[in-house]
Amino acid sequence: MADRNSPIGVFDSGVGGLTVAREIMRQMPEERIVYFGDTARVPYGNKSGNTVIRFTRQIIRFLLTQDVKAIVIACNTATAYALEAVEGELNIPILGVIHAGARTATQATKNGKIGIIGTEGTIRSGVYTKVMMEMRPDIEVTGKPCPLLVPLVEEGLLHDSVTDEIASRYLSELKGKYIDTLVLGCTHYPLLRSTVGRLMGPEVTLVNPAYETALELKAVLTEADLLCSGPAEGQEQYLFYVSDLAEKFTGFATSILPGAVKETRQINIEEF
Amino acid sequence: MADRNSPIGVFDSGVGGLTVAREIMRQMPEERIVYFGDTARVPYGNKSGNTVIRFTRQIIRFLLTQDVKAIVIACNTATAYALEAVEGELNIPILGVIHAGARTATQATKNGKIGIIGTEGTIRSGVYTKVMMEMRPDIEVTGKPCPLLVPLVEEGLLHDSVTDEIASRYLSELKGKYIDTLVLGCTHYPLLRSTVGRLMGPEVTLVNPAYETALELKAVLTEADLLCSGPAEGQEQYLFYVSDLAEKFTGFATSILPGAVKETRQINIEEF
Repeated sequence: MADRNSPIGVFDSGVGGLTVAREIMRQMPEERIVYFGDTARVPYGNKSGNTVIRFTRQIIRFLLTQDVKAIVIACNTATAYALEAVEGELNIPILGVIHAGARTATQATKNGKIGIIGTEGTIRSGVYTKVMMEMRPDIEVTGKPCPLLVPLVEEGLLHDSVTDEIASRYLSELKGKYIDTLVLGCTHYPLLRSTVGRLMGPEVTLVNPAYETALELKAVLTEADLLCSGPAEGQEQYLFYVSDLAEKFTGFATSILPGAVKETRQINIEEF
Repeated sequence: MADRNSPIGVFDSGVGGLTVAREIMRQMPEERIVYFGDTARVPYGNKSGNTVIRFTRQIIRFLLTQDVKAIVIACNTATAYALEAVEGELNIPILGVIHAGARTATQATKNGKIGIIGTEGTIRSGVYTKVMMEMRPDIEVTGKPCPLLVPLVEEGLLHDSVTDEIASRYLSELKGKYIDTLVLGCTHYPLLRSTVGRLMGPEVTLVNPAYETALELKAVLTEADLLCSGPAEGQEQYLFYVSDLAEKFTGFATSILPGAVKETRQINIEEF
């Protein structure tokens, strides 16, 4: 049975969700985390809603075997497609990465014009637009899928002329819409924050849902009286699981979370 | 029970294997084909050997339910990792895409220096080098992983300055090795043939394993007396299955195989 000292379950299609895990670690350094990256089936961004929902249910079943007290879907595509489908199936809190970022964006915009960049799945789902219009019906939302940014990040081309060129093509459409706020609607994109910021210019506010989601999680855990007082003696604070290539994951994760990754274990997620 | 009028099973992680299906259709227009693309778990190129073997076994089990008379692994990564593991488990012929292309390359080279481009998985496996060295121990083989070429092809950037730039970076190392023969070791790459040819120059022979594999398949079927005399009345000659996004697949497949794709059906490959 999960209690306040149980870990938080965090998952993503791969490594992108580590930017969310990092924010949780920063804002709640006492909390334990079990992270799962679905590296055998990455990426999710170009897959269908039904497939992403099926994958999400398998991962939630796995995380429940780890007695998690709350779950964060640290992937915009999975949040867009699966959060609504699965949230009624659980008796622990479950959060996505869309809601908190959407709220911050609707509060940050001055001219009411907000842009969102994300995977094809996230943008096609229309969830960001729907959630933001419910919060503030007077705003104008423009979504732009940026399918090549994830592979460019995963190849490590964070500061590269090719990434600049591709990002510039994707963003030019948004610049024509005179947005003053841009949501980084994919957990990989905070790693391209400086490139996107330079291309959009200083007058555009960038919203990072990873940061906002960790804030929201803290509020939810506080409200439910589920804040942890720190790991017990000899207990590993952070556990990492993947469905493939554990060593490669450890390398990437260590570059994002120095010192946090002792070991990554591999499981067969299709069995859950 | 499979007989000479049964279909040939062809599979890939996604759409790349359609270049192999196209060559089989051209060289053996009487044959029936059941094609499977694993679009729910694409790509394979950045996944581990054990995972790719598990996926391959599931797909073979599915194809056997379609009474196929032979199977072509139309994916270099799956051939590299899984062909040897599964070929002893079947009592029908099974071919990969590596052997035929490797043989052609060893015959084509004059200076004994051969290059191979492919996914990380294909190159890291070292299978091309191993197979070619067995055929001709005096040659020198240089493999170069080109992980961004698949996403660039899947985004349709076949003739684009960014693709030129990325391909040029990957190929510059091979140019320094003075190769005279280059194997297009990923089924997506024939779609970039003109770019690769221009960058390498006219003195480098490009080997397309799709073409060579169809030739080898014809020889195998002839030898086993399994050549088809054409589909029966009212029988669909080409069947297409995927694990996700059937409509998107139909669109892409139609651009490669005009008129061949009547319909694409979706199955849950994890159940096999």
